[in-house]
Amino acid sequence: MLIALLTDFGRQDLYVGSLRLVIASIAPGIPVVDLTHEIDPQAVDQGAFLVEEILPLLPAPSILVGVVDPGVGTSRRALGLQVGDHRFVGPDNGLFEAVLAGSRPPSAREITSPLVIRRQRSATFEGRDVFAPAAAHLARGLPFDELGPELDPAALVRLSLPPGRVRHVDRFGNLVTDLGPREVGSASALRVGGTRIDRRVRTYGEAPPGTLVWYLGSSGRVEIACVGGSAREVLGLGRGTPVEVAAGP
Amino acid sequence: MLIALLTDFGRQDLYVGSLRLVIASIAPGIPVVDLTHEIDPQAVDQGAFLVEEILPLLPAPSILVGVVDPGVGTSRRALGLQVGDHRFVGPDNGLFEAVLAGSRPPSAREITSPLVIRRQRSATFEGRDVFAPAAAHLARGLPFDELGPELDPAALVRLSLPPGRVRHVDRFGNLVTDLGPREVGSASALRVGGTRIDRRVRTYGEAPPGTLVWYLGSSGRVEIACVGGSAREVLGLGRGTPVEVAAGP
Amino acid sequence: MLIALLTDFGRQDLYVGSLRLVIASIAPGIPVVDLTHEIDPQAVDQGAFLVEEILPLLPAPSILVGVVDPGVGTSRRALGLQVGDHRFVGPDNGLFEAVLAGSRPPSAREITSPLVIRRQRSATFEGRDVFAPAAAHLARGLPFDELGPELDPAALVRLSLPPGRVRHVDRFGNLVTDLGPREVGSASALRVGGTRIDRRVRTYGEAPPGTLVWYLGSSGRVEIACVGGSAREVLGLGRGTPVEVAAGP
Repeated sequence: MLIALLTDFGRQDLYVGSLRLVIASIAPGIPVVDLTHEIDPQAVDQGAFLVEEILPLLPAPSILVGVVDPGVGTSRRALGLQVGDHRFVGPDNGLFEAVLAGSRPPSAREITSPLVIRRQRSATFEGRDVFAPAAAHLARGLPFDELGPELDPAALVRLSLPPGRVRHVDRFGNLVTDLGPREVGSASALRVGGTRIDRRVRTYGEAPPGTLVWYLGSSGRVEIACVGGSAREVLGLGRGTPVEVAAGP
Repeated sequence: MLIALLTDFGRQDLYVGSLRLVIASIAPGIPVVDLTHEIDPQAVDQGAFLVEEILPLLPAPSILVGVVDPGVGTSRRALGLQVGDHRFVGPDNGLFEAVLAGSRPPSAREITSPLVIRRQRSATFEGRDVFAPAAAHLARGLPFDELGPELDPAALVRLSLPPGRVRHVDRFGNLVTDLGPREVGSASALRVGGTRIDRRVRTYGEAPPGTLVWYLGSSGRVEIACVGGSAREVLGLGRGTPVEVAAGP
Repeated sequence: MLIALLTDFGRQDLYVGSLRLVIASIAPGIPVVDLTHEIDPQAVDQGAFLVEEILPLLPAPSILVGVVDPGVGTSRRALGLQVGDHRFVGPDNGLFEAVLAGSRPPSAREITSPLVIRRQRSATFEGRDVFAPAAAHLARGLPFDELGPELDPAALVRLSLPPGRVRHVDRFGNLVTDLGPREVGSASALRVGGTRIDRRVRTYGEAPPGTLVWYLGSSGRVEIACVGGSAREVLGLGRGTPVEVAAGP
């Protein structure tokens, strides 16, 4: 059993520490792993993209707490999902779209049980007051169905984003897109923003420093990089930029 | 048992990792939680504010290692505090003012024992050489009184800051103040820097994007936010800015 | 047993979280410590400097996973080292030069065993696919010799950097050099970039705010600081700047 955290909280405040103390108080000894807390503030689409990327690595059993939550304190629902030995808790705002789109349909519950929600619940920090305690109680053995009333997975919020976009920019300035092997096939060139990238490689080392290249990255998505540099800086592009296979030679 | 860390060390260096290796060497198996390491460099007042905020979430028993320490290597004392099942180690510079101001008087010790201080003690890194080993030995069962000679809590350093200030700015650009429910009562408007904020809300979702709002935050303090944006950027204000209830309509 | 991580991955992406999930899947319950993930991107020399700094604090037994790896996906070898109860896994690019230069000669193996390498090995993320699983299997008891074929330590890549350089700049803007007590002896002045620093101290508190000072830092290296400020900003200097003992008064 393991609890993984993915949020837009950053690390400069006490938000992540608060989640960890709540979990440690309810479920001492359960390992907690920080996936990332540097999702761009309130960028649900970026969070959903990274949730999809990490899914294959989650051990079973495990619980993913995902919090990118611009609607906190409004009527958006607090959501629990279960697929096999994996469980997910977070806002019902599309963050777990990849779980809903998986080959196995999840069970879904609204988190309403006073057994898991902190008594002093605030209007602005459900990560601490709802999601972290729900995960901790599940880790300690609370049956999933006791989180609250059942929800119809078909009625949950989805993002339904248009494909063909830069969805994440990593520390090295690589542009990570939502295109995969199926979309690019054996193409040799991409067009991103106004720029054509002709050099398809298997890894950075195949081209000299300063070259713009593209390749299927470590999670199976098309990435655009500048060898020994930052594609983000060289191209001046970021999240949301359209990307497509370039026609012709 | 759990050791929590709160420092201004940042994460780009080996300071935090050094603390963790020292703790793991002395007290293997004790869980360690990073609260934050991003206190502004040497900002004892900000650190003290965040210590106060996290106190209610600390499990019992636990040990908080707090290091924001511009006076390292000078004659400022190395301090241990105990209140019930909570213990605190760090510099005697006001960082633990909230512990001293609590309803239960703490026991205080100066950390001088060669049993806990590393033999190769440096003049600039007491986090590694004094505070982390003290916490690890306490976690392993060292009696609190063996840290060193007793201190009179009334003689410890206090910050005695003037109230009515922005004390922290969070990742989302929210300005967190030291005003609480008692200070603001049912007031509807605040004045921060030269700006009046008229919109008091319960949560962000109640006002349209771009609106400046204020509310009682998740830790019971008044916060000023810009819905869907950054109050810090919109207002151009930061830590230390005076804030008060605005009179009149 | 403990696994320590030192990389240039940053924390904004899923790279570190991926390592941790891989380790937790193979070796659940083994503690993992983040030393730093903020090595400048692909700065092997800076990484090697910090590996040297942390060596004395590693508990025995432990395993250090070091990944600063501009050559990932090329013919550079995946390396395992063993010295006493310490093991090291990472690229053969000089990152572990301090281990090779130690008083005890290490055993070296190339990591090639299909027992440890992930089946879906990518060309760009050997941290996840080779180094983390190798460390996890070693932590679970895999004999070191089973990583792969033996290597001659004398044939491993070394950096052989010229001494007398700023090798790291810390969060506080202190310039950390590779000079030690032997190089500076009882000298009173240093020259760094074009600037002479006359004030040698034992700790910051000995000089007034704004003073440029130098001292033997907490890991035994010469550091240059600006009391209450940032030497990096005041001097406008960074990694790679030459530094030497200044002659004359």
